[in-house]
Amino acid sequence: MAQNDPTTSAFDTATAVTRTDGGGLLAELDPGWEIGGGVLNGGYLLAVVARAALVDSPHPHPVALSASYLRAPAPGPATLTVVPGPAGRTLAHSFVTLSDAGGPALTVNATTATLTAGASSYSQPMPDVPTVEECSSVAEHGHLAPPGVQVPGLSLRVDTRLDIATAGWASGQPSGEPVLRAWVRLSDGREPDPLALVLFADALPPTSFAMGAFGWAPTVQLQVLVRALPAPGWCLVEARSNEVAGGWVDEDYRIWDSTGRLVAQSRQLARAPRN
Amino acid sequence: MAQNDPTTSAFDTATAVTRTDGGGLLAELDPGWEIGGGVLNGGYLLAVVARAALVDSPHPHPVALSASYLRAPAPGPATLTVVPGPAGRTLAHSFVTLSDAGGPALTVNATTATLTAGASSYSQPMPDVPTVEECSSVAEHGHLAPPGVQVPGLSLRVDTRLDIATAGWASGQPSGEPVLRAWVRLSDGREPDPLALVLFADALPPTSFAMGAFGWAPTVQLQVLVRALPAPGWCLVEARSNEVAGGWVDEDYRIWDSTGRLVAQSRQLARAPRN
Repeated sequence: MAQNDPTTSAFDTATAVTRTDGGGLLAELDPGWEIGGGVLNGGYLLAVVARAALVDSPHPHPVALSASYLRAPAPGPATLTVVPGPAGRTLAHSFVTLSDAGGPALTVNATTATLTAGASSYSQPMPDVPTVEECSSVAEHGHLAPPGVQVPGLSLRVDTRLDIATAGWASGQPSGEPVLRAWVRLSDGREPDPLALVLFADALPPTSFAMGAFGWAPTVQLQVLVRALPAPGWCLVEARSNEVAGGWVDEDYRIWDSTGRLVAQSRQLARAPRN
Repeated sequence: MAQNDPTTSAFDTATAVTRTDGGGLLAELDPGWEIGGGVLNGGYLLAVVARAALVDSPHPHPVALSASYLRAPAPGPATLTVVPGPAGRTLAHSFVTLSDAGGPALTVNATTATLTAGASSYSQPMPDVPTVEECSSVAEHGHLAPPGVQVPGLSLRVDTRLDIATAGWASGQPSGEPVLRAWVRLSDGREPDPLALVLFADALPPTSFAMGAFGWAPTVQLQVLVRALPAPGWCLVEARSNEVAGGWVDEDYRIWDSTGRLVAQSRQLARAPRN
């Protein structure tokens, strides 16, 4: 398989946005990027939206995306409507709606800009973690899925290696602290870029797994910030909840590239699993 | 002055949204809630948007707001357009645009719900901080403003008591760590509620002040999550940046109420001051 060739990357194919004869934008939502029960992953959907925001932007990179998840869209054809906002030399705003046959599914405030490889004047360091080889693959080790939960399609497409210090839940010993850490990369070897970071920003199992609650945690709102162009190689993702109460849970992601630089952040509000 | 009387609270008056004869929503943006140079505070503007989202919602509280700041609106009349989304027993979505005579200024994904006073199953504890009395008032001590920067109107309306461990910049000794902590409450004694938390989620000076950079840090996107009904009294706000690079800075807020419960979170992407 050719590495780094966007024409053969499953991620690039599955997030492609094409212009129709009528001038609209169309995507084909790929059922493979599901997280269980045929529900498509929120980061995957947001990466499709990011591609739509870039089509007519003067800038090449998504730097801030804030989405409301109105309903779960079905796999298959989806339309993308982009309302352009102010655009300048530094950044461009737009508002993107992703809809399927059932109506609007995501509404997204999108900001695009031109990221550079320049150094940080301040950057939060990567936490101490085991090497990729010392971590546990979600896809290869089915036992890492909690009891009764099948390994989702997403975990076959995003190679996810959990820090075993945060994977006790998979062997019936939840830590009780809602924190997960994992090395991730696209399984077909495509290197990370800002669009892949949007995907990674919602790619881990729910943090509530670490609390022993294995239900689905549907995203209500998700904000992703892309802070720098990532270096090639694995990215480290840390997901952490700060408050679980009243049926709500937050998930706070920080993502570092292989050089240890903080390259993305996300925060979502989700409904907490019941069990 | 009557405490806890919304008819006399400056905050409630300044964020009021009224329905016009034509059925539209109108606010009067109050020039007093400025952060310097006549620019209105982003949290103040978002609180006005939250009120608009609540007008026709079946739920009483904003729980998630994600805003793009397209341009700085002028003080004076503003119109609010609310496009309702799916609404149910648990939550309701809407999309709100705040515009002034110059056009759209904020586009906001808004989620409303019904928060309860129930206990958390997990909550990040409040950091160790000095008491309110041991902290420094931004309004009373003009010297807490950095050289050449006037105390803004916002700091007269939000009583802001900086933890002196994070206020070295005010006396020419920036810590170099982009972290600020402060106790806050509305100066007229109005108790906190979810709308006040939206205001508090962008109420501190820029974290870059702690790095010795005293310019304006205009907000590009801001997400606020309200997690619980706050208890009466002071709230503790901690603002922290994780990455400063390429002209961009993030600001990550956590807010605890007087009982030490985490009640709100926010994250924004802003342009970094140049100096």
